[in-house]
Amino acid sequence: MGTKEKEFLTYLKEIALINQAGSLLEWDSQTGMPQASANYRAEVSSYISGLSFDKKVNQKMPEFIEFFTNHPEELSEFGQAVFKKTKEEYDLDHNIPTEKFQAYSKIVSQAHADWLAARDAQDFQVFQPTLEKIVATLREFIPLWQKDEKTPYDVLLSQYEPGMTTEILDQVFDQVRTGIMDIRKVLAEKGTEPNTEFLTRFVSKEQQKEFVTQVVTELGYDFSRGRLDDTVHPFMLDLNRKDARITTRWDEHDFAMATFGVIHEAGHGMYEQNIDEKYDYTPLSGGTSMGIHESQSLFNEIIIGSNREFWKKQFPLLQKITGDTFKDVDYNTFYNGLKKTQASLVRVEADTLTYPLHIIIRYEIEKMLFNGDLEVSDLPKVWNDKYQEYLGVQPENDFEGVLQDVHWSGGSFGYFPSYALGYMYAAQLFHAMSKEIDVDSVLASDDYSPIRKWLTKNIHQYGSSRKPNQLILDATGEALNPQYLLDYMKNVYYKVYQISE
Amino acid sequence: MGTKEKEFLTYLKEIALINQAGSLLEWDSQTGMPQASANYRAEVSSYISGLSFDKKVNQKMPEFIEFFTNHPEELSEFGQAVFKKTKEEYDLDHNIPTEKFQAYSKIVSQAHADWLAARDAQDFQVFQPTLEKIVATLREFIPLWQKDEKTPYDVLLSQYEPGMTTEILDQVFDQVRTGIMDIRKVLAEKGTEPNTEFLTRFVSKEQQKEFVTQVVTELGYDFSRGRLDDTVHPFMLDLNRKDARITTRWDEHDFAMATFGVIHEAGHGMYEQNIDEKYDYTPLSGGTSMGIHESQSLFNEIIIGSNREFWKKQFPLLQKITGDTFKDVDYNTFYNGLKKTQASLVRVEADTLTYPLHIIIRYEIEKMLFNGDLEVSDLPKVWNDKYQEYLGVQPENDFEGVLQDVHWSGGSFGYFPSYALGYMYAAQLFHAMSKEIDVDSVLASDDYSPIRKWLTKNIHQYGSSRKPNQLILDATGEALNPQYLLDYMKNVYYKVYQISE
Repeated sequence: MGTKEKEFLTYLKEIALINQAGSLLEWDSQTGMPQASANYRAEVSSYISGLSFDKKVNQKMPEFIEFFTNHPEELSEFGQAVFKKTKEEYDLDHNIPTEKFQAYSKIVSQAHADWLAARDAQDFQVFQPTLEKIVATLREFIPLWQKDEKTPYDVLLSQYEPGMTTEILDQVFDQVRTGIMDIRKVLAEKGTEPNTEFLTRFVSKEQQKEFVTQVVTELGYDFSRGRLDDTVHPFMLDLNRKDARITTRWDEHDFAMATFGVIHEAGHGMYEQNIDEKYDYTPLSGGTSMGIHESQSLFNEIIIGSNREFWKKQFPLLQKITGDTFKDVDYNTFYNGLKKTQASLVRVEADTLTYPLHIIIRYEIEKMLFNGDLEVSDLPKVWNDKYQEYLGVQPENDFEGVLQDVHWSGGSFGYFPSYALGYMYAAQLFHAMSKEIDVDSVLASDDYSPIRKWLTKNIHQYGSSRKPNQLILDATGEALNPQYLLDYMKNVYYKVYQISE
Repeated sequence: MGTKEKEFLTYLKEIALINQAGSLLEWDSQTGMPQASANYRAEVSSYISGLSFDKKVNQKMPEFIEFFTNHPEELSEFGQAVFKKTKEEYDLDHNIPTEKFQAYSKIVSQAHADWLAARDAQDFQVFQPTLEKIVATLREFIPLWQKDEKTPYDVLLSQYEPGMTTEILDQVFDQVRTGIMDIRKVLAEKGTEPNTEFLTRFVSKEQQKEFVTQVVTELGYDFSRGRLDDTVHPFMLDLNRKDARITTRWDEHDFAMATFGVIHEAGHGMYEQNIDEKYDYTPLSGGTSMGIHESQSLFNEIIIGSNREFWKKQFPLLQKITGDTFKDVDYNTFYNGLKKTQASLVRVEADTLTYPLHIIIRYEIEKMLFNGDLEVSDLPKVWNDKYQEYLGVQPENDFEGVLQDVHWSGGSFGYFPSYALGYMYAAQLFHAMSKEIDVDSVLASDDYSPIRKWLTKNIHQYGSSRKPNQLILDATGEALNPQYLLDYMKNVYYKVYQISE
């Protein structure tokens, strides 16, 4: 490795180190930071992210970019991969002035507290001025970010899922929405609703924690390189591959929420924990896109979490931990109850069939906000209208409506479609995996590792060194195809609702 | 305020912001960080502290130092105070090359994990190589730090307690040691030992937490600007005045440990929480010295914690929280049991009478290490010998001996005397406070705030804008005088041991 490449990697390592400090500040502000110190934290977070940003686009970076663009032969093969990704990020960001970026980080850092305050007040107007600032800044940044994306919203979209466009999504989401609507129609007309009475039985936080900790450990989440904390809005956040933390919230009368929540976040954590060590301290060290990240969390949640063999094995453990609570519930009742589908207001509590509709609503709203003429002040109304249209339900207040998600307070517009992409990728990966592994037998056994290993081999290990479309093509032999998700859902729900085709 | 002063304060704010990130990294590494990631954390912490260090001695700092040294008239009165402190720190550190400092931070950051590993193994040798590196680096730094201090150990001492010397301490510690030995002799010969059987009764962590949380809230620790976490070695760490965190460890068969531990750390937290806001983001924003800091924690622990009226009010609360556990224990038995004194091996579990002897042992060892010819490898032996000599007890292994304290793993040589200074300051402050406030009546009442307010008025508010000796002189009307501590101890323990003079 040449001197210049070493110097380049050292410089990138400094950025990675600053980012790790920034990640911890973020984790802490969403888990245990004393709320009174939110203003101080906003100052720190924005300063630290500004330091990182400044190094990514200024200081020695322009020189590195110019040098290696003109002298690619000075880079090893590894260095070339690192440089490619670095340059992509540089090209994206270097038009944004550091002061503007820092001011934006400060707004975003403070916004979390404003969002919480608005939730407490159940009133969107408390959050509106902050969100307006965020949206205004993004509208200002979009032309500076824009390369060959066709619309402003495409610019945001491609930051979370490189290569993804509104053109593709409009079509794919149309197919998914129609497919789900069709399944829901059949279930409503011919299905037998499962009994779900037992789902609201009291299960203490400690019991839930004991159960789900054991489950995700079996699935492959490594607690010696992670931890589980309480939060308002569940997330996974990694500082590095040996420190990938997950969070959840608990409801003692809805054990399924935290159970599936932790199983979901553990999937994100397992992705980060299994990225090849060689990418440490480079821009290739994290997951490649939000969509692929969600494919890993949702593989856990909807593929494994909908598997009958999995629950045949895990239900007795839950029964054991909870004493007499589920003594009178048999396995079939339990499984079918878990998989009941019902239109609901809150995305993170939605069942696996209606979930993509929540995403499609957000996608359409975000598109209107950046490509159309929707204003921030109109969000509650359009939100409520769309819920009525697609799911037939209406929020009673903004807390269970437009204020339910943390994402917009973090400026993460363009992120939501990743969840739906993750659903589709997960089903497609499962289809491919099933050709090599008898997933049912593995999940009936005491050793789940073949599943984790398949995912590490095909997805995890690469970090950000491969793009989402390449990963999916290599792992499954074809490009994104939503039909696998629809087939999988149909299969799961027809059985639960006792529909014979 | 002039342009140049504004620029200077902005620069100092950047340092403060980096330090807050560094503090969070430190807090996290001692509370919940996955241990597997210790190496990664060492890289981050050393890089972040290097960033701060570099700003403190390089970049624009030399220019500011030169400019304001030659143009003091360009500074407001506030700016002058800030500049004075900044220059002191600059003069101290600017001879240390940043790379050396960064390398040292990395050793220290990693050392915590090595110390933990040695404790697990109960074997000092596991920690020895790391500690040797730390000591060697400090020996190298001392001549670079040295101003007019007379001995190498004085250089370390004055970093924690400006103005303190081995000359003063040798004399003061001699008086304290003799005084304590005398009291111990009287108690052993004529005293009646209190019953302590109840101290080992089972009190669950939850019960302990409920009790002590309520107690320290009454004392004035503000949980909306702090939090309480579990750790191996208890500490208080503040990011800023609205985020002053405390930690403790719990033993369900020794409720007094965490009770007094949390009361102690809350005293540190109250100091930071009540510093004047105007010092935010300047080097004047924290406590002025470790000795003064300990005076606040020890005021809580040994002055309030030894007060009969305090326990007359709090014991019923403990009884209520613990159900039947202490039903058969009367108040006098309870109070006297808490104040039993007995030679012990572990400093943080020592009673308030023998505690200063633990400190004097460490002081003498540290002095030998830097002013004499003691080597790191000799530490276990000299440690055990001194415990035999002063306390008549011998550790069975290094875990309960030389490995018991976290300080040396953090390079904090010269810190321990602060604890004994804190004892003496606390007793002296109590003596002064008693002239203005009837402390017994306050502690018998439902409103403890007069005590906290007196301390804020005389100590807290000033942050680092006044030196320890000035604070003590202003608050008590005289310089450090160890006799107040000895008188206080004699008073407390003679009563507990039923000795009439």
